[in-house]
Amino acid sequence: MTMKRKLKSGIHHGLGLFFEYETYKIVQINSIKVGIINRVIQLAIISYIIGWVIVYKKGYQEFDNAVSGVTSKVKGVQYTNFTGSSIGARIWDVADYVIPPQENNAFFIMTNAVVTADQRQGRCDEDPLVAPCSTDSDCPAGLAQMLGSGVNTGRCVNSTQRPGVRACEVLAWCPVEVDRLPAASLLPNVANFTVLIKNSIEFPKFKVKRRNIASGMPEEDYLRFCRWRPDHPLLKFCPIFTVRDMLRHAKVSDNIFIKGGVMAMNIHWDCNLDWAESHCTPEYSFTRLDDPAAGISKGWNFRYANYYRQNGSDYRVLIKAYGLRFIVYVTGRAGRFNIIPLTMNLGSGLALLGLATILCDVIVLHLLRKRSAYREAKFQQMEDEDAYKAMNDEEAEESELAAGSAGAASAAVGSSAKPDYGATGE
Amino acid sequence: MTMKRKLKSGIHHGLGLFFEYETYKIVQINSIKVGIINRVIQLAIISYIIGWVIVYKKGYQEFDNAVSGVTSKVKGVQYTNFTGSSIGARIWDVADYVIPPQENNAFFIMTNAVVTADQRQGRCDEDPLVAPCSTDSDCPAGLAQMLGSGVNTGRCVNSTQRPGVRACEVLAWCPVEVDRLPAASLLPNVANFTVLIKNSIEFPKFKVKRRNIASGMPEEDYLRFCRWRPDHPLLKFCPIFTVRDMLRHAKVSDNIFIKGGVMAMNIHWDCNLDWAESHCTPEYSFTRLDDPAAGISKGWNFRYANYYRQNGSDYRVLIKAYGLRFIVYVTGRAGRFNIIPLTMNLGSGLALLGLATILCDVIVLHLLRKRSAYREAKFQQMEDEDAYKAMNDEEAEESELAAGSAGAASAAVGSSAKPDYGATGE
Amino acid sequence: MTMKRKLKSGIHHGLGLFFEYETYKIVQINSIKVGIINRVIQLAIISYIIGWVIVYKKGYQEFDNAVSGVTSKVKGVQYTNFTGSSIGARIWDVADYVIPPQENNAFFIMTNAVVTADQRQGRCDEDPLVAPCSTDSDCPAGLAQMLGSGVNTGRCVNSTQRPGVRACEVLAWCPVEVDRLPAASLLPNVANFTVLIKNSIEFPKFKVKRRNIASGMPEEDYLRFCRWRPDHPLLKFCPIFTVRDMLRHAKVSDNIFIKGGVMAMNIHWDCNLDWAESHCTPEYSFTRLDDPAAGISKGWNFRYANYYRQNGSDYRVLIKAYGLRFIVYVTGRAGRFNIIPLTMNLGSGLALLGLATILCDVIVLHLLRKRSAYREAKFQQMEDEDAYKAMNDEEAEESELAAGSAGAASAAVGSSAKPDYGATGE
Repeated sequence: MTMKRKLKSGIHHGLGLFFEYETYKIVQINSIKVGIINRVIQLAIISYIIGWVIVYKKGYQEFDNAVSGVTSKVKGVQYTNFTGSSIGARIWDVADYVIPPQENNAFFIMTNAVVTADQRQGRCDEDPLVAPCSTDSDCPAGLAQMLGSGVNTGRCVNSTQRPGVRACEVLAWCPVEVDRLPAASLLPNVANFTVLIKNSIEFPKFKVKRRNIASGMPEEDYLRFCRWRPDHPLLKFCPIFTVRDMLRHAKVSDNIFIKGGVMAMNIHWDCNLDWAESHCTPEYSFTRLDDPAAGISKGWNFRYANYYRQNGSDYRVLIKAYGLRFIVYVTGRAGRFNIIPLTMNLGSGLALLGLATILCDVIVLHLLRKRSAYREAKFQQMEDEDAYKAMNDEEAEESELAAGSAGAASAAVGSSAKPDYGATGE
Repeated sequence: MTMKRKLKSGIHHGLGLFFEYETYKIVQINSIKVGIINRVIQLAIISYIIGWVIVYKKGYQEFDNAVSGVTSKVKGVQYTNFTGSSIGARIWDVADYVIPPQENNAFFIMTNAVVTADQRQGRCDEDPLVAPCSTDSDCPAGLAQMLGSGVNTGRCVNSTQRPGVRACEVLAWCPVEVDRLPAASLLPNVANFTVLIKNSIEFPKFKVKRRNIASGMPEEDYLRFCRWRPDHPLLKFCPIFTVRDMLRHAKVSDNIFIKGGVMAMNIHWDCNLDWAESHCTPEYSFTRLDDPAAGISKGWNFRYANYYRQNGSDYRVLIKAYGLRFIVYVTGRAGRFNIIPLTMNLGSGLALLGLATILCDVIVLHLLRKRSAYREAKFQQMEDEDAYKAMNDEEAEESELAAGSAGAASAAVGSSAKPDYGATGE
Repeated sequence: MTMKRKLKSGIHHGLGLFFEYETYKIVQINSIKVGIINRVIQLAIISYIIGWVIVYKKGYQEFDNAVSGVTSKVKGVQYTNFTGSSIGARIWDVADYVIPPQENNAFFIMTNAVVTADQRQGRCDEDPLVAPCSTDSDCPAGLAQMLGSGVNTGRCVNSTQRPGVRACEVLAWCPVEVDRLPAASLLPNVANFTVLIKNSIEFPKFKVKRRNIASGMPEEDYLRFCRWRPDHPLLKFCPIFTVRDMLRHAKVSDNIFIKGGVMAMNIHWDCNLDWAESHCTPEYSFTRLDDPAAGISKGWNFRYANYYRQNGSDYRVLIKAYGLRFIVYVTGRAGRFNIIPLTMNLGSGLALLGLATILCDVIVLHLLRKRSAYREAKFQQMEDEDAYKAMNDEEAEESELAAGSAGAASAAVGSSAKPDYGATGE
């Protein structure tokens, strides 16, 4: 053979290897019993993959979470006439009870307050509940009252809040706040107030934008007069909520107005973008976040002040505001068909299908009456000479005899380079 | 055989089973036609797995989302001279037009306002557009004007806002607001104002922190004078934005200043942490969130008040502020090589490779001219006696004959415990 | 054969195909060497799947992220006596130093300030550092000072802030702010202030709600007096934090009080809902977000103003507030057993197990001494007549000879419809 011929035959050989098609050798067993078991297991696995993973859990979709912007606008006015407090008769409008006037993903409606007017820096007696005293030594000078309003001057004086009781004198905004809340809510009709929520979301991966105010609606009248109702086919999309409805759907009673509370408003967008975008609409739900049974620090309140100057002196009106704090969450998830999760799930599913064969093999090879025949059909045995080298040589023969189930198939392959058990075309 | 020998041979047998190596029997078909089909399908699947899933979709990476903190600082002053309004000639600086002075992930720049000065609690006539009346019976006492400013006293009086028109008298902060907006923006030069955005992010899973103000830059001068420009190689990292640029990139015209609007600023970090961290830089983009074509409640406004006291009475200045509300989103995703997603994706990919064999088998076994020869090579048939028990016994022979495609391979395995079709070394 | 018989035999044939059980033909090789290699590779893959993917990375769980609400309440008072500034001796309480009084997921504690009292609209000299001048031409009329407080009138006047220096005259709130910060913090004892954090979370997918204030604790006393300590078994759940502790755990020194800074408080919930819900507790951690080494715009400050009117004129107190801005992040992840991720991971794992066979085949078929025997046992060759059609016919014989390693197995299958190498029951 010349070099040229060798090269040619090498190329032929390589091409032959490359274009060789390899497929598993299959043993087909025609048995109704085994066949039914096999098909039932396959059917269960396929149903699970198709029905649960692909269809129910939308395994054919790629998902994206929403980014969103929320603005809120509260409307409503109320007249109160608290004769027993420093507040007196007055009107409350939005600028009075929404503090701060705008927040990101939240809004606050004041429902009750302790107002301390005309405070100025000076010395006065602390709340006797916070800093009671009998002598000056009970009021170490310079100590800050952590739950109070000021820093001790070192003197113990008669309380102006409660006659006959003594309290530490403090450097503070004077007079100090008398922290007694009216038994009723300052603003009992907050339940009638309304909130307009505007929510814009975007699914960045899909470049889809949606608003909670649908563009196709007769907006002018719709927005002025509609009120959200979750069970109404059209009004469930209305973006105007009365406080009453929000509390009712969170199963919160009106006495939340007295001490305030923290509420969550959830705007949930669950969008299947394989359908029309107009089906991508929000759902609203409400829950109470704070613990109504909390032993201490119940409800929700905070202090703020309005500052002003008169004749060169600083004054302020201190307000301890109780009220409803609404935190608005937007949770949005959109799914759209995508080939990658589908193939990944199908790939895992195909691999799981292999389980059917594994389970059936256990049954066929170990439980059926004709198992030894199946075993011989499925397995082609080949024994290496080292398989028994590790054992005692003299017992090799006996162990071969003992391995009865393997039968005649276990004859060791000798030194012959061309064994005759190969399934060749000879 | 003694017990000892039995035990020994049992151990030998068990060890033999444990160290038995099982591999699939493969049928190799040397056919250029089939081979090419096989290789093409395999190549397509491998390209898909490697190219799309692993490389393009970064299937070799584990991902984490960023947590982030944003602070913003607006700069700019403007002089206005509105002779027709209650505002008059005045200067506006940051403390005047940024309300509230700081927000979380948001900031607001007032561009227009309706200012009602020197309001105090009392009785006065409502806006005749909100509460027109002809007789007292049109103004039921105690009714709160939801879109107005107060609670009806029950009287219908002449309007002070519009001569010759009558309106309900209300308990309110008086005088009530005259809700007429100047036709032009109060602050036309807001476009020149600048915002410095500081953004710190962290990818908790990878313990990587990044800031949008790069530490390597000549900060002092850079931060004072640079302005963000998205198409400039260096200035696209500048954290100072003019309002003009932000509006321009969101394709929003300047008349947003008149009625306000809600803008989104997106800071996007798409980081491949397999590279140097210095490549992990932000991208800024802007969109308008509110609907500029909304029929009602257009733009963005809210009311707030500055309270003060004079001679023991409460006064306030009510401001209905229109302006640009910017909501800052930070979306960040970082990926880093991780063995788990890689192996999971490869695992699914391997399973998909099985598709190539399945597809080729369909072609080889059903479409090619020599399909019966291939079928015989691939399948080794074995028939259980129960395969036909369910049928009429007398027709078993005929059905065997009819099953022609299975050919001679379908001979039933009899009761022989040692069938001679096993591929043994006999 | 009649039609009826044909139909019957067709049904028999179809049923036979449907209930046919197909299983891979396996070649068993009894070789200790190969067996051990095979088992070791299998063991490694199984350990990886079970140990790492399933157990350590909780591949058997479905995960959900938390939605959360946070409220914060700061407590503490302090007395300062700054003789050199416009502030003088005064008390600072919550309403003074928390601005705005409530924020969503954030709070601010003022620690230093530049206060400019009694400003009113007018003409005055700008800060000479911002707008120095020598003649009127240095002060173009109408130019807004971007880093200053007003708009140039066009005149250059003597500075009232620094004798002997000239500065542009501006229309502004006068007098303009003298932006000199006290060298020490205004409020040095901020470190003693405390913050009560209330955090409610929900995992919507699992409908599980948790609060950071555990309901089983003796709340009344617990909440009044406990202070968070991360290393204490009980106090690590205390929701009251001193500013000192928060700074210490973020490794930030007290001189952050002078120029302020941005801090992150992370509340992390890592919940395994396969256990009792009471194990689902938060962990708190703190880091500094802003760059303490920033060359410019160091720390955190913002300007706000308190407005008031006297005798029909607008006045304000301008405050440039420096302080600690805390941004509260809640990151929560809960896992619960779910069959889908488990099966998906097992599916991928099963597919990976195929790697063991592939690797062993490489060893067995190419590296072992008896490789040709193994190869013949594993492969059943079949050659199509087209395999050599592409080549020169005259060399087919030689290439067959050259393909020595394939040995006698490579005999081409002829035109015989019943090849005798099939493993049939003949």
